Amino acid sequence: MNTQSVSANDKFANLQELADKRWDSLLTHSPAIKAIYKGEIDIRFYAIYMIETYHYTHHNAANQALVGARSDNNNVQYSRFCYEHAMEETGHDLMAFHDLKSLGVNVPIEDLPTPLPATEVLIAYLYRVSETGNPLRRLGYSFWSENSYQHFMPILNEIKNRFKLENKNLTFFIQHAEIDDGHAEDIEKQILRHAINEADWKAIAEVMDTSLSLAWSMFESSFDAFCALRDGQSDKFEFLNSLLESETP
Amino acid sequence: MNTQSVSANDKFANLQELADKRWDSLLTHSPAIKAIYKGEIDIRFYAIYMIETYHYTHHNAANQALVGARSDNNNVQYSRFCYEHAMEETGHDLMAFHDLKSLGVNVPIEDLPTPLPATEVLIAYLYRVSETGNPLRRLGYSFWSENSYQHFMPILNEIKNRFKLENKNLTFFIQHAEIDDGHAEDIEKQILRHAINEADWKAIAEVMDTSLSLAWSMFESSFDAFCALRDGQSDKFEFLNSLLESETP
Amino acid sequence: MNTQSVSANDKFANLQELADKRWDSLLTHSPAIKAIYKGEIDIRFYAIYMIETYHYTHHNAANQALVGARSDNNNVQYSRFCYEHAMEETGHDLMAFHDLKSLGVNVPIEDLPTPLPATEVLIAYLYRVSETGNPLRRLGYSFWSENSYQHFMPILNEIKNRFKLENKNLTFFIQHAEIDDGHAEDIEKQILRHAINEADWKAIAEVMDTSLSLAWSMFESSFDAFCALRDGQSDKFEFLNSLLESETP
Amino acid sequence: MNTQSVSANDKFANLQELADKRWDSLLTHSPAIKAIYKGEIDIRFYAIYMIETYHYTHHNAANQALVGARSDNNNVQYSRFCYEHAMEETGHDLMAFHDLKSLGVNVPIEDLPTPLPATEVLIAYLYRVSETGNPLRRLGYSFWSENSYQHFMPILNEIKNRFKLENKNLTFFIQHAEIDDGHAEDIEKQILRHAINEADWKAIAEVMDTSLSLAWSMFESSFDAFCALRDGQSDKFEFLNSLLESETP
Repeated sequence: MNTQSVSANDKFANLQELADKRWDSLLTHSPAIKAIYKGEIDIRFYAIYMIETYHYTHHNAANQALVGARSDNNNVQYSRFCYEHAMEETGHDLMAFHDLKSLGVNVPIEDLPTPLPATEVLIAYLYRVSETGNPLRRLGYSFWSENSYQHFMPILNEIKNRFKLENKNLTFFIQHAEIDDGHAEDIEKQILRHAINEADWKAIAEVMDTSLSLAWSMFESSFDAFCALRDGQSDKFEFLNSLLESETP
Repeated sequence: MNTQSVSANDKFANLQELADKRWDSLLTHSPAIKAIYKGEIDIRFYAIYMIETYHYTHHNAANQALVGARSDNNNVQYSRFCYEHAMEETGHDLMAFHDLKSLGVNVPIEDLPTPLPATEVLIAYLYRVSETGNPLRRLGYSFWSENSYQHFMPILNEIKNRFKLENKNLTFFIQHAEIDDGHAEDIEKQILRHAINEADWKAIAEVMDTSLSLAWSMFESSFDAFCALRDGQSDKFEFLNSLLESETP
Repeated sequence: MNTQSVSANDKFANLQELADKRWDSLLTHSPAIKAIYKGEIDIRFYAIYMIETYHYTHHNAANQALVGARSDNNNVQYSRFCYEHAMEETGHDLMAFHDLKSLGVNVPIEDLPTPLPATEVLIAYLYRVSETGNPLRRLGYSFWSENSYQHFMPILNEIKNRFKLENKNLTFFIQHAEIDDGHAEDIEKQILRHAINEADWKAIAEVMDTSLSLAWSMFESSFDAFCALRDGQSDKFEFLNSLLESETP
Repeated sequence: MNTQSVSANDKFANLQELADKRWDSLLTHSPAIKAIYKGEIDIRFYAIYMIETYHYTHHNAANQALVGARSDNNNVQYSRFCYEHAMEETGHDLMAFHDLKSLGVNVPIEDLPTPLPATEVLIAYLYRVSETGNPLRRLGYSFWSENSYQHFMPILNEIKNRFKLENKNLTFFIQHAEIDDGHAEDIEKQILRHAINEADWKAIAEVMDTSLSLAWSMFESSFDAFCALRDGQSDKFEFLNSLLESETP
């Protein structure tokens, strides 16, 4: 075992630690999580969250491909990874839309409400990260997102049990989790292969931390939007009220 | 056999016919081709052509991927094809650069002369085709380029024999031809699957015809640049003069 | 006075009210503001904030121009405004850099630390707003930013007095405020002229609210970065420590 | 008079000479020009040319603005020029469309036939020139286009007399010529101010020569399209046949 790779493994461990710390902090202080465990939500929250998930996931293949296509990215192996990963991510947004429909929501994809501001901020950030700066830095986003299921599963199970959801209502998370198992390893390999200097590791860590925080803001915003709907203060997601009459999908 | 597919096959045959006609016209009227068969060129022509080939090929994976990433392209299967094809095209530019070096040219990739105007026009057109208009139309470019070896091989053989080149000096064309065999079939499948109306077929045909003509302009411009170098009227490719002392690579 | 313009004026008043409410909420809950009035900051905070201001302002002319250049924006008068406004905003980033240097910071522009994540998020959002969605929506950002001085001036005066700054250290805010006086009116005129339906007003309001919040996050992040520097937890802005020895610029 | 500016003036003179030479060569060998003077065209040729002129002019403000907005263009004065010039060019496409309508063509702007391939190639090239490479190089395009009226006026007069057109049918050329008088001087000033090394002058010259040739191809293609229409070989511009019944507009 040579010194170089020890050092890279150390840096990778630091990245993992930073991600775990951020997850801990986000989960601990989340009003949405508290409300979920207190039973203060209903199925409309999950529906809103699936709509937002559809929206940001819709851009993931595209922004991943843009990294490969950058004129300042002349790393052949990394570009190939970007295109292959983009190919695999294509259509995952449709899983989120499928889950939404499986609840009984009957809306054509083009009539979905526009993304919440927090969702648009996440989308905007991922495009900027993909198109500018260190070409490796989008790996920081993939790093946590392909590893998120361990952190997110307990919440998802709580939602699942509370609303008597079945696996067919959760394909985005469940099937995606299986598909992405290999992806997490791929991302690790890509980072270890291509991150060669301090600036690379820093750029990856910063994007990891920032995009995870923004994704979490999207989750909290979905909760805020749910509260506004529940309390009659907003009509943005009014069409979801029909779900209350047929709670068990 | 249903009417729909007969009609699509007919349209595909028309596309093939249009391509053959354009090739015929280009080959018949080409000053470069005439000069090649008359023996009026030397190895520097092939070197210049490989430099230009490197330049435009360098953008092919990127512009292919951009088709998949377009916000107005929501065809999941077609996007996947775009990303997969981009992955496969990544690095093909390095074959052209390899062939250049195999002749005895010793120049770092970043010190290559900038593209000739005709080459930059081709690059510009392929980006525009990929980023705007009918998302299917870039298939028109792939259609002829993945099928070009049958038309181009006789010329290549003439060059090969005249300069006593070996296969290792022609990897771009020879290995590429083998790799692309499957590609030609893929392109046919993609066109037949996705081109559903008259506008699609028209857009594909127009890009096929225009990009083939522009690629041929690049070939003729390489010949003009060779003549200018040979006649001492330009110093753009001066560093290639060293090849004359060691004609047989 | 016709109904149409009454209604537009009402909507404009609503926009103003929404902005005031957001400013109130941000100012009331701001840890940075509290620290400023308690005297818990030093000049390094202002320096950090000027660096971040330089960074995001650097993109303002560009993203403003991109609105005019969009292929889905065929409004000749609005495009002209976008280009004219871009022209006027060009170089305003240099005022922020000038103010930083006037404090005694001696760093070439290309050696400035990279933007804080919150700053990059703001930049990313403004590009996305400018390049996609309703072409009018970037007016929501101009609306509050060209009107921000009334809200921000008290804070600025506090900073100015506390650190004995002179007008030459605050050119970005002071001269910018004068220049932008006319801009605020221009923006009002543009909004009243071009916002013709509910969707336009909604898009403008959403971007106003979101970009103001993101700009404020940048302000708070500058404060967090200052705290980390002061407490020796980060070396990102270490070069600013030299300012402590010569507090009065 | 210092050596520096003499040398710059010399280089500017070379640019002018290169432009004149290219105009000469294009005019001398043009089948379209020959046909015009032989009286082998009718008003449909002018209509087709105005449609193509509308198409490429439609992008001129946008691609001009993109030069200012480039992340690798940090020249404040040059960026301001780009935005101001973009502002002035905005809407010039509508002059071409106006002239088309003034002939008696009654077609909504969105129903115009798509650009001819040669027109799309010119558009593509101008976007690429504006977005990549030396940021100054688009000045090479402005250089000849703001100076083209002297070369083009004799042809235009021939067309005007032959079809008994009035100034109101030629606003694009006549009013544009007046407006652009100042522009030509502006462009000269910009080139002399910003082109500081050999690479700048070379880039400007190359784009000047290439874009002029491509614009001329568009002219010739308009003629080819006219011939195809006249000879019944294409229906692309069929709706213009109505002009024959009412030749004098």
